[in-house]
Amino acid sequence: MTLIDRTTRGVYVIAATPFAEDGSLDLASIDSLVDYYAARGADGMTILGVMGEAPKLTPEESRAAVSRFLSRAGGMPVIVGVSSPSTDALAGLGAFAMDAGAAGVMVAPIPSLSTEDTVATYYAAVCAALGPDVPVCFQDYPQLTGVKVSAATILKLTRDHPQIVMLKHEDCPGLAKLSAVRAAEPRMSILCGNGGLYLPQELQRGADGAMTGFAYPEMLSGVVHRHLKGDADGAEDLFDAWLPLIRHEQQPGIGLAIRKEVLRRRGAIASSRVRAPGPRLSPADLAELDRLIARTEARVRGLGERLAA
Amino acid sequence: MTLIDRTTRGVYVIAATPFAEDGSLDLASIDSLVDYYAARGADGMTILGVMGEAPKLTPEESRAAVSRFLSRAGGMPVIVGVSSPSTDALAGLGAFAMDAGAAGVMVAPIPSLSTEDTVATYYAAVCAALGPDVPVCFQDYPQLTGVKVSAATILKLTRDHPQIVMLKHEDCPGLAKLSAVRAAEPRMSILCGNGGLYLPQELQRGADGAMTGFAYPEMLSGVVHRHLKGDADGAEDLFDAWLPLIRHEQQPGIGLAIRKEVLRRRGAIASSRVRAPGPRLSPADLAELDRLIARTEARVRGLGERLAA
Amino acid sequence: MTLIDRTTRGVYVIAATPFAEDGSLDLASIDSLVDYYAARGADGMTILGVMGEAPKLTPEESRAAVSRFLSRAGGMPVIVGVSSPSTDALAGLGAFAMDAGAAGVMVAPIPSLSTEDTVATYYAAVCAALGPDVPVCFQDYPQLTGVKVSAATILKLTRDHPQIVMLKHEDCPGLAKLSAVRAAEPRMSILCGNGGLYLPQELQRGADGAMTGFAYPEMLSGVVHRHLKGDADGAEDLFDAWLPLIRHEQQPGIGLAIRKEVLRRRGAIASSRVRAPGPRLSPADLAELDRLIARTEARVRGLGERLAA
Amino acid sequence: MTLIDRTTRGVYVIAATPFAEDGSLDLASIDSLVDYYAARGADGMTILGVMGEAPKLTPEESRAAVSRFLSRAGGMPVIVGVSSPSTDALAGLGAFAMDAGAAGVMVAPIPSLSTEDTVATYYAAVCAALGPDVPVCFQDYPQLTGVKVSAATILKLTRDHPQIVMLKHEDCPGLAKLSAVRAAEPRMSILCGNGGLYLPQELQRGADGAMTGFAYPEMLSGVVHRHLKGDADGAEDLFDAWLPLIRHEQQPGIGLAIRKEVLRRRGAIASSRVRAPGPRLSPADLAELDRLIARTEARVRGLGERLAA
Repeated sequence: MTLIDRTTRGVYVIAATPFAEDGSLDLASIDSLVDYYAARGADGMTILGVMGEAPKLTPEESRAAVSRFLSRAGGMPVIVGVSSPSTDALAGLGAFAMDAGAAGVMVAPIPSLSTEDTVATYYAAVCAALGPDVPVCFQDYPQLTGVKVSAATILKLTRDHPQIVMLKHEDCPGLAKLSAVRAAEPRMSILCGNGGLYLPQELQRGADGAMTGFAYPEMLSGVVHRHLKGDADGAEDLFDAWLPLIRHEQQPGIGLAIRKEVLRRRGAIASSRVRAPGPRLSPADLAELDRLIARTEARVRGLGERLAA
Repeated sequence: MTLIDRTTRGVYVIAATPFAEDGSLDLASIDSLVDYYAARGADGMTILGVMGEAPKLTPEESRAAVSRFLSRAGGMPVIVGVSSPSTDALAGLGAFAMDAGAAGVMVAPIPSLSTEDTVATYYAAVCAALGPDVPVCFQDYPQLTGVKVSAATILKLTRDHPQIVMLKHEDCPGLAKLSAVRAAEPRMSILCGNGGLYLPQELQRGADGAMTGFAYPEMLSGVVHRHLKGDADGAEDLFDAWLPLIRHEQQPGIGLAIRKEVLRRRGAIASSRVRAPGPRLSPADLAELDRLIARTEARVRGLGERLAA
Repeated sequence: MTLIDRTTRGVYVIAATPFAEDGSLDLASIDSLVDYYAARGADGMTILGVMGEAPKLTPEESRAAVSRFLSRAGGMPVIVGVSSPSTDALAGLGAFAMDAGAAGVMVAPIPSLSTEDTVATYYAAVCAALGPDVPVCFQDYPQLTGVKVSAATILKLTRDHPQIVMLKHEDCPGLAKLSAVRAAEPRMSILCGNGGLYLPQELQRGADGAMTGFAYPEMLSGVVHRHLKGDADGAEDLFDAWLPLIRHEQQPGIGLAIRKEVLRRRGAIASSRVRAPGPRLSPADLAELDRLIARTEARVRGLGERLAA
Repeated sequence: MTLIDRTTRGVYVIAATPFAEDGSLDLASIDSLVDYYAARGADGMTILGVMGEAPKLTPEESRAAVSRFLSRAGGMPVIVGVSSPSTDALAGLGAFAMDAGAAGVMVAPIPSLSTEDTVATYYAAVCAALGPDVPVCFQDYPQLTGVKVSAATILKLTRDHPQIVMLKHEDCPGLAKLSAVRAAEPRMSILCGNGGLYLPQELQRGADGAMTGFAYPEMLSGVVHRHLKGDADGAEDLFDAWLPLIRHEQQPGIGLAIRKEVLRRRGAIASSRVRAPGPRLSPADLAELDRLIARTEARVRGLGERLAA
């Protein structure tokens, strides 16, 4: 069983949770989705995050999804989002996931936290409830949680709690904050979210990889692995070719519907259904997406040919 | 089986959800709590609201609590809070509650709603999912949800959906809005929250009663029933005597811990435990509460003697 | 010239800014307002705060108001609110005020500050721009600014910058935070806002006085001075008698219109006009206020007679 | 004197306000900045917006800037941002600007507005204060103001007030809202902000142009004018080539510092100074910007050569 640690690098794709057209959990599509991510260069997965519609699952569904993802993942490490309004529920799902073979858990601050010392107090309680052997990824996503955390607090968390080994960086604008954490703490894994919108800049500032749900994992993999091998220019060239679609998917709210539609078209999942309440794509949205995909795929092919020539 | 409707009046106490010291659901304390509310003049109860720590319950616990409250309530109508990030889960709990004998359900807007037309769209979906026979109380609580709704939207909701028969009014400041809804729609039940902090003014502006969790239900009952019988001055005299404690309990966050402590002291529940993450009372908080209770109870007794004299 | 310092105690009334019916600054009413506050026991005043409609004044009007208030105040210390989107403008008004004889300045965090370290950086720049001889009151009012600050940051500010001698405490709920600051820093002046809604509890937890704009300064003075003389019970009795009106005035938004109407009725200012955009009182609001004032004044008179008997 | 109206199309660049190194208003740089925008294809300008640091200007500085911009603009239409906490100040600056030859004014909702009917009430007061002859651009920017407005409210505003002829669209995600306004109201000018991040999609959905402050106006002009001439593909090709820099400049907060630095490098203004409190670029930020500019300029040159070939 692989665990995440302070040296974890690469691409952890944020996985969608597939539903059938009738809204039920689609376990077979979990299998195809895992295969899809693995075949396109993902180093790991993060499941039951915001994009995974976790708050819309019952506890039973969450556990069923965890089991199925982990079963199919084989050796690929899987981080499980366990954020919850209840610390007991958080710890319960965390224990279940670790028993089932998860590589760690991801926890975002609950929205009612106000000052940064209440964040510290909350994570102390979370770590105690999880136990010291469960590796934790701190999700810094103030656009969603409303909880703003300085680099100093992130450093305090990872130093006070050795099990907090990873930062999911998605504050925005956040490049200066990423640099501050990186400079002070070379040994914390930093993976970047925000739909990948600033990924080359984040890698150039010392991030260790990506953790986001862009529906073409080959972009994430291509950019991150090129960069980690020393080819920053090639990584950024590839990124720039994909950027129109990255920017389009990164829109809050509607982005999830776009991603599920792309995953469906590519055969990764059977239905693009998002559980209610959730966004739906209009005919105008679909036509726009057709156009953006066609343009982007042509551009990426062109880049490939130039690189090959 | 009594259902709430547009003529519902009186006091619907927001019920706490009792937990044992080990954090498990305390079903026996549900019985004693129902008896406590009933003996002190409540006309009905609302369970699984914010004060009921609903987001910290598993679906099984929610159903167990619903069954126990309804079983003990006898003829007293019970409204069940069913707000959820998932419309399916909302409808599922709603159907369970109505089957078990609930008088209606309460639904707050989900925080991701932005403009007022998205609120209207959301409630249309909620009403369709619940079915037209389930009476709905619209909870207007922007301090918690972040969703701001004008009187015009509330009126549209109750006119477009005959099953939306009740408003839980707790916008603040909200007196002008209450007057606007009342003037335009004499036949919608308006019960007031916000810890009761403006209760006499709300009743004088035409509200039909209270729906809040003040731990001394005899205050709510005394004020509302006096007012409804035409004794506005007596109602307000009684309210003013209790006001220092009303104001103290009404503090966001810590207020829940204060209320559970009062309920415990009065024998209504066995433990004052709040599920984590949640507020806890410090020794300073407890000493302060002792003082406030002693002062308030003496004042209320004095008022009673003056009224009796 | 008196300056505020770490030992400052008592009542600093937040002063309204009077306008004539045509919306122009009413300098003559500044004189009568100062006299009104002084005659009813204020120890000092704070001008150009939120309640003073400072953002609606031009720089010239701000300076004219500062000069007039200070000229009339005689020996009474006056704190001047200088919060501004521009640090240069803040420092400019601060220098003007201190030259004119102000006792210090009050500064709230600008809303764009996010994490607590940006608050610290901002106050370092503010203190540098003001110069070390200008005493500063830190206004902690997250309900308005959106900037949440822990006790640790307040302590850091007052220790890093000796000129930050005073805290205007108006976080809510904020009693635990007040206790934490008081316990760690016995020598910082803490004056309390929030319309005075928790004033007795705040004094009992070690606050040094009040800084709020309740339109009957004799309440603030009576409560604070009784408490500081050791009569906590008498202070709280007096407070409780006024509480229905305190709670009514404390409503955000509409509260300013209520206060100016009360000040006008009592002869302190010539017009209750609030500059647009701002709240206006409806006939229902005015009738409600009549009733609340009549009830409260009768209760306070009754208390006086009981105390005298 | 040209006025904006419901048929206005093209590029209205959001102009920076230039300051000298000592922080004073740099009037000479206003001249060079106007020339810079005009030479690169701007159809008009919008001054004293958020990017223009308007809240950091004194009223005198605002008027001096308005006069200088208008004097240099010659026939180019100029919209003046007049948003203010005071409706009188808003109307005063509006009258000054129109007298000086402005083409219209831009007004954002004030942050204290809550429900959408308060937005309607506010704009009724604003229009009355401005007078019916002043064309108004409604700025829909909820990320900054916190005020969320539905398409229905925008349509109501432009129908109730014929002088509200233009929408500055910058809600995000906002494509569906733009389509809804466009479908219902073909005759309202819609110019798009948000740093241009979604400009091709917005044009394809019927927007009339751009109103944003990207520091290379030739991109805005090239994209918008190509599109308006019917070359949607060419417009989007050009946009995509610039997108890495568009995305980089569009970051909230730091984006203003980046833009002023680019304008300084290109000779449009003498100093990149942003008034305090405001962002500053670190050495890492500057090196990152160098790289992004070099890459983007090379790509755009390459595109030009391909188009020319």
